[in-house]
Amino acid sequence: MNIPSKYLEDLVEHFSSLPGIGKKTALRLVLNLLKRDQSELEAFSKSLGEIQNNIKTCGNCGNISDAEHCEICLQDSRKQELICVVEDIRDILAIESTQQYFGTYHVLGGVISPMEGIGPNDLNIESLMSRIETGEISEVILALNASMEGDTTNFYLFRKLADFDIKVTTLSRGVSVGTELQYADELTLGRSIINRLPFDMNLMKK
Amino acid sequence: MNIPSKYLEDLVEHFSSLPGIGKKTALRLVLNLLKRDQSELEAFSKSLGEIQNNIKTCGNCGNISDAEHCEICLQDSRKQELICVVEDIRDILAIESTQQYFGTYHVLGGVISPMEGIGPNDLNIESLMSRIETGEISEVILALNASMEGDTTNFYLFRKLADFDIKVTTLSRGVSVGTELQYADELTLGRSIINRLPFDMNLMKK
Repeated sequence: MNIPSKYLEDLVEHFSSLPGIGKKTALRLVLNLLKRDQSELEAFSKSLGEIQNNIKTCGNCGNISDAEHCEICLQDSRKQELICVVEDIRDILAIESTQQYFGTYHVLGGVISPMEGIGPNDLNIESLMSRIETGEISEVILALNASMEGDTTNFYLFRKLADFDIKVTTLSRGVSVGTELQYADELTLGRSIINRLPFDMNLMKK
Repeated sequence: MNIPSKYLEDLVEHFSSLPGIGKKTALRLVLNLLKRDQSELEAFSKSLGEIQNNIKTCGNCGNISDAEHCEICLQDSRKQELICVVEDIRDILAIESTQQYFGTYHVLGGVISPMEGIGPNDLNIESLMSRIETGEISEVILALNASMEGDTTNFYLFRKLADFDIKVTTLSRGVSVGTELQYADELTLGRSIINRLPFDMNLMKK
């Protein structure tokens, strides 16, 4: 692709460095931006240039925040003795949207991945351990994705947590609510049989 | 989605204003950006903020350019009497990549679309007409997309050009090279029969 302006090419390069955005998509985005008001572009540019300085990380759980501690950690109604360990803040948003969890979180910032050169020391595991060492935590929920890297990280954390008198749980896996059994994949259907639960009338009503 | 930082939310808003990018994708992009070096973000931000001031439009054809006239208009080898009318600069890139066209272009900057409130006066039609009024143009190729809006614009331009002694052509439509006939859509296959061509041994070899 022979873009006729080096300024345009420059901006296309920046956009195409983003995950899932190729050169052609980047060009489409930039041409769209060219039609905007200059004031709008300046606001976008300012927001982008200052984002790293403006955003803070919660000193307790690693969630993104505008203050020293995030809103979730500051809420009185949250059970401070419960920690849900997640990979990144998008997982917090997903779990929060269920309105079924009332504990705190801990953001690892990734998972152990030897292929990408990410080891335990690159993740926020030390801060998790110091939260646990206070002795105020009763349960840790490992809510990582069910991938090779997620499982490796689960296993690593499980071994580290074994030294403490803490309940360690993971999310239940099973057939999605609303999925017809014949279309569920074998692995998931198999797990949902192994982990079958006592019938609960209350869950049916929801 | 309840994003825990207003700075983050701000940037996500900007990204999700781009075509084809929703809130979730925007958040993924922004979280990726947060892991970059500040210097990289500043370069991105600068490129974005200055793009409108840096980029010029070719005074002749409307192509994007870093100078008064674009590279294509300045090339001596180009047939200046030939104009290919396109919707936007991505079409120029596509046609240039074929290496089969040696004339100049004219970028309309859109197509007539009553639904979106775009009329002939919003497009670069006046500058096209003044190029034609010089009397130095022998052929205009209408290379707009085969959509309702593209056809409307083609028809509008065709009527305007009828006053001049100029050949007006459009791109040929037909079955793609490499497509098996049984999978071609009826409309396209029908058009390629109506517009059938004398058999040419030279085209077979390419």
